[in-house]
Amino acid sequence: NFPERERGRERAMELRVLSSAESFAVSLAALAGGLAAGLGIGASGGQLPYLVHPVEVPIALFICAAGYLLSCRLGGSTSKKSSCKWKNSGNVREDFLAVYNDLNTELVAEVEEQDPKLPPQVAAHVKRLIDYNVPKGKLNRGITVVEAMEAIRGASSPELTWRAAALGWCIEWLQAYFLVADDIMDASETRRGQLCWYKVDGIGMNAINDGILLEMHIYSVLRRHFRDDPLYVPIMELFHEVTLQTATGQFLDLTTAEPDKVDFSRFSMDTYVNIVVYKTAFYTFYLPIACAMLLAGITDKKLFAKAREICVLMGTYFQVQDDYLDCYGDPAVIGKVGTDIRDNKCSWLINTCLAVATPAQKKELEANYARHDARCEAKVKAVFEACGVKQAFHKYEEETAAKLRNLIDQVDGMPPTIFSQLLKRIYRRKKQ
Amino acid sequence: NFPERERGRERAMELRVLSSAESFAVSLAALAGGLAAGLGIGASGGQLPYLVHPVEVPIALFICAAGYLLSCRLGGSTSKKSSCKWKNSGNVREDFLAVYNDLNTELVAEVEEQDPKLPPQVAAHVKRLIDYNVPKGKLNRGITVVEAMEAIRGASSPELTWRAAALGWCIEWLQAYFLVADDIMDASETRRGQLCWYKVDGIGMNAINDGILLEMHIYSVLRRHFRDDPLYVPIMELFHEVTLQTATGQFLDLTTAEPDKVDFSRFSMDTYVNIVVYKTAFYTFYLPIACAMLLAGITDKKLFAKAREICVLMGTYFQVQDDYLDCYGDPAVIGKVGTDIRDNKCSWLINTCLAVATPAQKKELEANYARHDARCEAKVKAVFEACGVKQAFHKYEEETAAKLRNLIDQVDGMPPTIFSQLLKRIYRRKKQ
Repeated sequence: NFPERERGRERAMELRVLSSAESFAVSLAALAGGLAAGLGIGASGGQLPYLVHPVEVPIALFICAAGYLLSCRLGGSTSKKSSCKWKNSGNVREDFLAVYNDLNTELVAEVEEQDPKLPPQVAAHVKRLIDYNVPKGKLNRGITVVEAMEAIRGASSPELTWRAAALGWCIEWLQAYFLVADDIMDASETRRGQLCWYKVDGIGMNAINDGILLEMHIYSVLRRHFRDDPLYVPIMELFHEVTLQTATGQFLDLTTAEPDKVDFSRFSMDTYVNIVVYKTAFYTFYLPIACAMLLAGITDKKLFAKAREICVLMGTYFQVQDDYLDCYGDPAVIGKVGTDIRDNKCSWLINTCLAVATPAQKKELEANYARHDARCEAKVKAVFEACGVKQAFHKYEEETAAKLRNLIDQVDGMPPTIFSQLLKRIYRRKKQ
Repeated sequence: NFPERERGRERAMELRVLSSAESFAVSLAALAGGLAAGLGIGASGGQLPYLVHPVEVPIALFICAAGYLLSCRLGGSTSKKSSCKWKNSGNVREDFLAVYNDLNTELVAEVEEQDPKLPPQVAAHVKRLIDYNVPKGKLNRGITVVEAMEAIRGASSPELTWRAAALGWCIEWLQAYFLVADDIMDASETRRGQLCWYKVDGIGMNAINDGILLEMHIYSVLRRHFRDDPLYVPIMELFHEVTLQTATGQFLDLTTAEPDKVDFSRFSMDTYVNIVVYKTAFYTFYLPIACAMLLAGITDKKLFAKAREICVLMGTYFQVQDDYLDCYGDPAVIGKVGTDIRDNKCSWLINTCLAVATPAQKKELEANYARHDARCEAKVKAVFEACGVKQAFHKYEEETAAKLRNLIDQVDGMPPTIFSQLLKRIYRRKKQ
């Protein structure tokens, strides 16, 4: 069913290495054809009997060359499998999950068929690892790729929509990789209503290696479904870039606050924004939008820069809301009680408070922040209250939403709805 | 000094998206030129006065097209910086380390210049992380890329040799990434004569994130120095593939033996070979050779398959020697006392022994393997002795060396010396 992996790799290598040579051959053929045809047309005063009129030779050659090159350009591969089609049942989430099943099947089959000498527990482990970690989130990032691409392109083929969904799943895979690693680094217990992967019996620190497997699945999916597409390199580079940015954000986050040591000299609003933009905004907002734009055929770099600006601000806004809800949200709506204060988090609230607090209030915060004690937490919240943190948030929310609407109004060359719908979904949200 | 990162990414995107269009334009120009020239030659009975003889037009066009396409093919980019040159001082190791300094400087500068808003500790951390983890090994993998490429190509330009060294360093970076992660998973204490990275004060589990940073440096280096090269995609795919294989080997290794539970039913020579091939042979032997072959312009897939076959066997042989030396090597020569028996390792020795042991000997092994006790270890070694494991190794060594020499003799299309020199270096070696 699936081509053997090794053969595939060599085919890709040939394709890439020979593509210049192929172009060269096409150019040479065009040159020779043109020369021959010209000679024919020029020399014949109509005397010579031609089976084919000489003008037809360069035209035919031209059509062949154009067809070949356009097929490259549009990524119209002949190897696409008929099963790789978006179902379009009307239920985006269900259709998106169907693509997950396709990818899961392919990846597991790839392990089995790549090397029959590998024991069956490898494929079984890969299946378990993926099923446990990849499809358990809200899937907003992945589905955004499909919805944004359709908004930009209008109607698109079931094959292209399937590929948008596959890219969306690559983002979900990347997210799973980060979460598996982050949970170990943060010593977390649960994630998405189940034990963290490294806490699962028999996994432990092997989870680090499982993270590497999850990450490499992204590039297996890209190779399988985008190898013949001119977007292959830009997409790989985008994933590499966003992976680096997210790891940089995680570094900033990990080194800004040790879990138990209160040191407000390390906190600042600039630090906060850096952490949020690098750790979350790029992969949560920019990556899905950039994937959709690439797939929809957008190449204008100014549009990518504008999208990035909007996504960075929207991602920051989203995280600020998250911090606000951790403290002031309704636990009944959110489904948990916030722990940012006792966890010594460099949150928007503490940074906003520190910016206006008196020396006495700072001392009070220092004495009570990051204590695993409900009374200390209440004292911190009282200082927040006295410093007007809640009001500052509402002001921030309205100002940022206005700034975003203004930026979205400037979008020219694709439908601004892909951003305004995201904004509508999060503006004044009550749920995390 | 270095181009801004974001601009770079977009430039790459444009290049890739437009490369087919560019080829198309060249073909069209060739066609039009040929047609015009042909018409000119055909129509003129010599009567028309031409400033340029019509035959010269297609020839000039042909030369332009050929030059353009060959420059793509050979990766002759115009954007290469003059500093990126191999020093050729006669000391390969020193020259190779000079390239490390170039890459280190570039990566740190990239952090600083990518986003001036990032605090200086990010660049400082990246520098410390790289310096601690990347250049401290024997550098055999990396230097092999340079030596093998030069053996295949003969003399090559200082620019190309520098790029071979940069690819070699990418392998060293990949190795650093694996070692940082492996040391956490194996709960190791020291590595290359210093504390494991995660054991360094203030690092701890953040080392997992540092591994991701190290991994992404590979793709930053490739993007900076291979973006305009037709080898860009094959090289990225090779690194993705080998990363996946190595993580698969690590999974097999981690799940074959728990540190303290003796369960010989999980051991077998097939399992052993799978672990060795996946965990070590691909990235240690095949990856450097394949990088050198790609850079030297080899495209014949049969040659890559032959190189793979040799490297897989040589990697297995290398690891079998390693296992042998762990038990029977001279600690004065090796610099440490072997611990495979007490660490419950699925080594070549235990698998060889189990294949011929009597039920009584198996019981003896089960009772004494993986005990942190010198007397138990001695008992295991006595069974090894009784089963002729030492003799079996010498037989294996001679047979495998003969098999390798035979395979190397079959190499046709590049100098077999790149393999025979590797073999010479490890045949009957006494050092690990």
